[in-house]
Amino acid sequence: MPAIYNAPLKDIRFLIHGLLEGGGLSSLAKYHEITPDLMGAVLDEGARLCEQEFLAVNASGDEQGCNYDVDTQSVTTPAGFKQAYQAFVECGWLGISMDETWGGQAMPHLLGFAMEEMSCAANLSLSMYPGLTVGAMNLIATHANEQLQQAYLPNMVSGQWSGTMCLTEPQCGTDLGMIRTKAEPQDDGSYAISGNKIWITSGEHDLAENIIHLVLARLPDAPEGVKGISLFLVPKVLEDSRRNALGCTGLEHKMGIRGSATCFMNFDNAVGWLVGEPHKGLSCMFTMMNAARLMVGLQGLGTAESAYQTALSFARERLQSRSISGPVAPDQPADPILVHPDVRRMLLRQKVINEGNRALAYWTAMHIDISLHHDDEAVRQQADDIVQLMTPVVKAHLTDEGFDCCNLALQTLGGSGFTKDWGIEQLVRDVRITRIYEGTNGIQALDLVGRKLPMQGGRLIRSFLQLLDTELKAYSHHRHYPAVKAARDDMQAATFWLAQEGVKDPEEVAQGATPYLRLLALTAIGWLWLKMSLKAEQMLADGDPDVGFYQGKIKSADFYMAKVLAETTILLKDIQSGKQVLMAFGDEEF
Amino acid sequence: MPAIYNAPLKDIRFLIHGLLEGGGLSSLAKYHEITPDLMGAVLDEGARLCEQEFLAVNASGDEQGCNYDVDTQSVTTPAGFKQAYQAFVECGWLGISMDETWGGQAMPHLLGFAMEEMSCAANLSLSMYPGLTVGAMNLIATHANEQLQQAYLPNMVSGQWSGTMCLTEPQCGTDLGMIRTKAEPQDDGSYAISGNKIWITSGEHDLAENIIHLVLARLPDAPEGVKGISLFLVPKVLEDSRRNALGCTGLEHKMGIRGSATCFMNFDNAVGWLVGEPHKGLSCMFTMMNAARLMVGLQGLGTAESAYQTALSFARERLQSRSISGPVAPDQPADPILVHPDVRRMLLRQKVINEGNRALAYWTAMHIDISLHHDDEAVRQQADDIVQLMTPVVKAHLTDEGFDCCNLALQTLGGSGFTKDWGIEQLVRDVRITRIYEGTNGIQALDLVGRKLPMQGGRLIRSFLQLLDTELKAYSHHRHYPAVKAARDDMQAATFWLAQEGVKDPEEVAQGATPYLRLLALTAIGWLWLKMSLKAEQMLADGDPDVGFYQGKIKSADFYMAKVLAETTILLKDIQSGKQVLMAFGDEEF
Repeated sequence: MPAIYNAPLKDIRFLIHGLLEGGGLSSLAKYHEITPDLMGAVLDEGARLCEQEFLAVNASGDEQGCNYDVDTQSVTTPAGFKQAYQAFVECGWLGISMDETWGGQAMPHLLGFAMEEMSCAANLSLSMYPGLTVGAMNLIATHANEQLQQAYLPNMVSGQWSGTMCLTEPQCGTDLGMIRTKAEPQDDGSYAISGNKIWITSGEHDLAENIIHLVLARLPDAPEGVKGISLFLVPKVLEDSRRNALGCTGLEHKMGIRGSATCFMNFDNAVGWLVGEPHKGLSCMFTMMNAARLMVGLQGLGTAESAYQTALSFARERLQSRSISGPVAPDQPADPILVHPDVRRMLLRQKVINEGNRALAYWTAMHIDISLHHDDEAVRQQADDIVQLMTPVVKAHLTDEGFDCCNLALQTLGGSGFTKDWGIEQLVRDVRITRIYEGTNGIQALDLVGRKLPMQGGRLIRSFLQLLDTELKAYSHHRHYPAVKAARDDMQAATFWLAQEGVKDPEEVAQGATPYLRLLALTAIGWLWLKMSLKAEQMLADGDPDVGFYQGKIKSADFYMAKVLAETTILLKDIQSGKQVLMAFGDEEF
Repeated sequence: MPAIYNAPLKDIRFLIHGLLEGGGLSSLAKYHEITPDLMGAVLDEGARLCEQEFLAVNASGDEQGCNYDVDTQSVTTPAGFKQAYQAFVECGWLGISMDETWGGQAMPHLLGFAMEEMSCAANLSLSMYPGLTVGAMNLIATHANEQLQQAYLPNMVSGQWSGTMCLTEPQCGTDLGMIRTKAEPQDDGSYAISGNKIWITSGEHDLAENIIHLVLARLPDAPEGVKGISLFLVPKVLEDSRRNALGCTGLEHKMGIRGSATCFMNFDNAVGWLVGEPHKGLSCMFTMMNAARLMVGLQGLGTAESAYQTALSFARERLQSRSISGPVAPDQPADPILVHPDVRRMLLRQKVINEGNRALAYWTAMHIDISLHHDDEAVRQQADDIVQLMTPVVKAHLTDEGFDCCNLALQTLGGSGFTKDWGIEQLVRDVRITRIYEGTNGIQALDLVGRKLPMQGGRLIRSFLQLLDTELKAYSHHRHYPAVKAARDDMQAATFWLAQEGVKDPEEVAQGATPYLRLLALTAIGWLWLKMSLKAEQMLADGDPDVGFYQGKIKSADFYMAKVLAETTILLKDIQSGKQVLMAFGDEEF
C-alpha cells in the first residue's frame, strides 16, 4: 500500500480565509477580484492534479530514478513524469503568480505557496522541475533586460522551456566567493561561459524543449570573492535552434529525490547573456534563492503531511494489543494502535507540528503579496521586513521538522515503515535533502542572526516583537497566554544576549545561530497556535457545523503548549552557554 | 570516498580499564586470568578484522543487496560477505563469551559488547548474521535440554551453523499473543510446526551449512494470548541430512541493511523440538531478546561512531569560508569548515553523545558479567537489577541518538552527505531500523515504566537512585555537580509522579514512557560524564602523556553539561502535563 495523500484543503482554507482573513488580500487592490470562491476552485483543481497525476508516479519515480545516456549526454526522467508535467503546465500552474504580460495568471503568491505544498507532498522529485523554472522566471522578470524577458519568459511560463540555477562548483558550495567559472565578453554583446557546475537540479531532462540556465561566473576584470560574481542567462538551445556549447556530464547518485535529475554540467565557451549589472550577480541570484528557500520549507511541510496521513491511516487500521483502559474494539482480535498513548504522542506531534508550520509559512507568504502590492509604502516595508526575517526560519524550521515528522510517521508503522511497501521510507529519504540545499539549515541560521537581526539597526526583529506584544496584550486573559508570553520572553532574552555579546565577539552570535532560529520559530508558531485556538473557538461559538475540525484545532493548541513550546527555555540556556564549550577543543581533542 | 572507520580503542580502553576499573572483572574469580594485556590483544585483533574485512564490503553490500532465487528458495548474500564471515568465525568471535564446554572462549560479555560495537560500526548488515546466532546460542544454552545443546551448540559456536529467532507474523509484531503458528506433538517426541513468519533476519542465506530457527508457536491445548506460546528449535537441515519442511518464500525490500536477508518464512509440518516448558516460550525468548536489545543499542552507537569519524575527517579537509576570528589557513583559498562554530556544534554533539552512550552501554555490560559470576548473591542481584533497568534504556536511547547523530554527520557534509559517495547516507538508512526491531523504542519505554519501575516494589529504580546519591555525595564539590544533581532531581520527580498517577490511571504511566526513558538516560549519562571528567583530570594529574585525549574528555563533559543535560527539565514538564492532551482527541479530531 503506497503513501496516501489527500490535500489538506480544509486546513488551507482555515488559514487563508479564517486566520489570515482572506490572506490580507482584501487590502490589495490588485486582488480585489480574487474571491474566496475563485481561490477555492483553483485550489480544488490543483489538489486533484497532485492527488492523482503527481502521486501516481511518486513511488515508481523513486524506483526507476533518472537515466543518463553518456553518448547523447541526455537524461530520461522516470516513466509518467512527462504526462504529469504536461498536465501541470497545461493547467497554467507555472505562471500562477506571474504577470499577465508573460502569459501568467497574476494570482496571489499565497496560492502559489499552497500549490507548492501540495505538489511537493505528492511528488517531491517531479515538483522540482517546475519549481526551479518558477524561480528562474522570477529572477528573469526582476533582473533581466526587456529583450531577454521577451525572448525567454513566455515559453517558460507556458512550460515549454524550463529553468535552472547554476551556482555550486566542486570547490565551492556555501562559499560562492570561490567560483571559478569564467565569462569572456564577445563582440556581439554575448559572453562565452566556461566552467564546471555540480548539483544542478533539472540541469538536463526530457520534459521541456529548452532549458534556461542561470549561471554564476566571473568576468575577466572581476574582483576576488563574492563581489566579483556576475549572472548569465545560458540557454541549452540558442535562438537559431543550434545546441549551445554546454552539456550534462553525469548524474549524482543520491539518497532520495531519485526522480529529480541532479546534474554535473560542463560549459565550454557556451553563449550567455548578462543579467543585471556586472559583478552584482549574487544579489540577483538571491532574488531567486529567497523565493526558493521559502519553497524548500514547503517541501519539508508537504512531505511531512503526506507521511502523517499515511501513518494515521495505518494507526486506524493496524490491530495490536488492547487499550489500557479496556477494549475499544471487543469484536476484533485487538484494538487499533491509535488507542495507545505512545502512538498518539507520535501522531499528534506530527499533526500539531505540521499545522503550526503551515500557519507560519502561509502567514509569511501573505506578506509577500502585501509587500509587493499594498498601496501604502510603510505597510509594504513592514511586510517585506517579515518576509526577510522569516525566510530562513521557514526554510530551516519546516525542513528540520519535516524530516523529524517523516521519521515519526515511519516509526508509527514499526517494521512496515522500514519497508518499501508503505512509501514512508521514500519520504524520509526524499525530504532529507531539504535540510541541505538552497543553503544548509546552518547557513539559514547564520543568515538569520548575522544578517537579518542586525539589518536596519535591528528593525526586523524589533517590529516582530512589537507585533507579538500588541497581539499578546489583546489575548492576556487566554489560557495559553502565559506559555506564549514565556516563550516570547525567552526569545527577547536570547536576542538581547546575541546583540550584546556579538558586539564583543561575532563568534558568540554564530555559535547561537541554530538554537536561536529554533527559538524564534517555536515562539512565532506558539503565537499562531494561540490565534488558531481563538479562531476555532469563535467558529464554534458562531455555530459552524464542522465541530470535529475546530475541536481538533483547539486540542492541538493545547498539545503544542503542553508538549512543544517549553523547549524555548533550554534553547535560551544553550545560546547563553556561549562559544567556549565549542571553540575550546584543540585539534587533538576531537 | 567511502565511510571511514577506525575502532575507538583508546576510548574503549579508557572505559574498561579507567572508568570501570577493569570492568569489575577483578572482583570475579572466573576472570582472574583476563588481564588488561590479554583484553587489549583480543580487542586489537577484533578491531583489525572490522576495519579491514567488514568495512571493505559494507558499501558494496548495500549496493548489491541480497538475492532471492524463487526456484530454489535460496538467498545469496552480497559478494565478499562469505569471506568476511569466515574470517570472523575463524577468529572464534562467535563463541567469545560462550562456555568452553561448547567450544567457546568464556571471555567477559564486556568484550563481546566491544566487538559487537566495532563489527556493527564497520558493517551492520554483515554483523547481523553472527549477531542472531549469538542470541540463539545463548537461548539454547540457557533453556534447551542437554541433548539439544549437545546436538546444536558446538556447530553454532564454530560458525558452521547459524541461528534465527522467529517471532513476528503478518498479524502480530508487538502483540505476540496473536501468534497463530501451530505445533502438533508427534509420536517420536518431536513437533510438527506449521505457519508463516515474517521479518526473519538471516532466515535463509549462504554463509552457513545449517540454520537453526527458534520458533514461537502454539500447542493444540494452548491457552489464548501470551500464556499459550511455546518455543521450538527447528533446524533447516535435520540430523539425517534431510531438508526440513520449511523455506524462505521471499525477502523484504527495505530502506537499509540491504545486505541483511530479512525473510518471509513458511513452516509446513516442519520437524521441531520443544525448548523449555510448554506455554512458557515467551519467557525463554526474552532471554534472547534482552541480550539482543542491548546489542541493538550497540548497533546504534557503532553506526554513529562511523558516521562521526567520516564527518570529522570531511570537516578537517573541506575548505569553505574563513573563520570569523580571522584566517587559520591563510595559505589556502579558505579555512577548513571545522573552524566554524555551527559545524563544531554538530560534530561535538556527535562526539559527546557517542562517548556518553558508550559509557552507559559498557557500564551496563559490566553488570552482566557481575550478575552472572560474582561470588556474593546480593551483588549478583544488584547487578542484575541494573541490567534489567538499563536494557530498554540502552536499546532505545542509543538507537534514537544513533540515528540523530548519523543525521548530524550527514548534515556536516552538506550536499556531499546526501550522495552515495561518502557512505553516510547508507549509515542513516541502515541505522533507522534499530529504533524499530527487537521491540520498537516506544515498546522499550513501556517496558521501562510498565515493568521495570514497578518490579520488586520499585527496587530497581530505587537502588539506582541510591547509587547516584552515594556517588554524587562524593563529588559535591565538582563544578558539574549542580547540573547532574538537577537532572537527578528531575528524574526522581518524574518517577514519583508516574508512581503516584499510575496507581489511579495506568494510561498516565504509558503517556510518559518515552520522555521518561530519555530523562533516565540523560541523567545516567550525565553522572557518567561527571565520572569521566574526574577520571581524565586524575590521569592528567598522574602525568599521563595522552594530554589531548584527556583534555578532550574534560571538555566533552563541559559540552554535555552546557548543551545536552538541561533537556531533563522539559522532559519532566512533558511527563507531568499528563495524558489529557493526548487522549482528548476524538476520532474526527485528528
